Amino acid sequence: MARVLKVATVVVASASVGALFARLQAPVPVVRALSTLKSPPQVARAVWSLGRLNHVAIAVPDLEKARAFYRDVLGAQVSEAVPLPDHRVSVVFVNLGNTKMELLHPLGSDSPISGFLQKNKAGGMHHVCIEVDNINAAVADLKEKKIRSLSEGTQIGAHGKPVIFLHPKDCGGVLVELEQA
Amino acid sequence: MARVLKVATVVVASASVGALFARLQAPVPVVRALSTLKSPPQVARAVWSLGRLNHVAIAVPDLEKARAFYRDVLGAQVSEAVPLPDHRVSVVFVNLGNTKMELLHPLGSDSPISGFLQKNKAGGMHHVCIEVDNINAAVADLKEKKIRSLSEGTQIGAHGKPVIFLHPKDCGGVLVELEQA
Repeated sequence: MARVLKVATVVVASASVGALFARLQAPVPVVRALSTLKSPPQVARAVWSLGRLNHVAIAVPDLEKARAFYRDVLGAQVSEAVPLPDHRVSVVFVNLGNTKMELLHPLGSDSPISGFLQKNKAGGMHHVCIEVDNINAAVADLKEKKIRSLSEGTQIGAHGKPVIFLHPKDCGGVLVELEQA
Repeated sequence: MARVLKVATVVVASASVGALFARLQAPVPVVRALSTLKSPPQVARAVWSLGRLNHVAIAVPDLEKARAFYRDVLGAQVSEAVPLPDHRVSVVFVNLGNTKMELLHPLGSDSPISGFLQKNKAGGMHHVCIEVDNINAAVADLKEKKIRSLSEGTQIGAHGKPVIFLHPKDCGGVLVELEQA
């Protein structure tokens, strides 16, 4: 019994030193190792896969002007402007066949894209939205990988599905939205 | 006959007033109307259609780091880095099934994306590329519609097909590449 306890103590001590060292050098593997130790073998970590590009979002200062550009100048199929008060944007969908562009314009004073338009008065590319097959698994995995998000968990997005926005600073300068497929 | 002439005069006058009004409100239909009057009916203006989104281009300051992010963090299928000396960029293709993202990094000192990365040190969304079924017709039509481009005519793009870049100032702040499908 004493021998077993001693072995256990060594393992714990070794794990602690290892964990401390690893935390200084590379945080992600430590979290994974602890997670593996805690979880029974039969409970596999949920997996997830990246899917198709759902849309490219463009912030625009004048929604009707932008809609007319895509419709009349480029000849694209465009929707009417759709107000989404819950998301504080109005949106026009530009259908490109394999995916779509979404033209976003602030709705109300506290729109999440107002700041972007203040910095980019002519408008510009705001984010990309990529589908995932299991957003809860994606959120847990990305948290483990130390990728920051703009909210603690998922929220219901503009298409009525759970979404999460990943921080541009952790995604090579790009605001990446993940959406449950 | 007098009655017919009178009707015709009224129609012309109405058209002129309408054209003037249109010129003040929306220049594009006027250009179209003039073009129709000038061209003999048997020489139809070449038509073109917008197609699918070919790719979203992301300028990145560290190509291997960005490649590792899409491959290891998001689990995407990524290519090796491909140097394209003619275009003065190295590129990694990120396959998203329905379309792709292209990670661009400057190759050489005079790369077309160096200026963008100087302004956006963390990287960011650089342009969208949309396919067209007849790029020569598109170029002629867009010139007629007073949309400026970054070159006089088409050039051979990164996929070996004719492309043209439209000026962001005429495209709602977005650099739009058109590529022959």
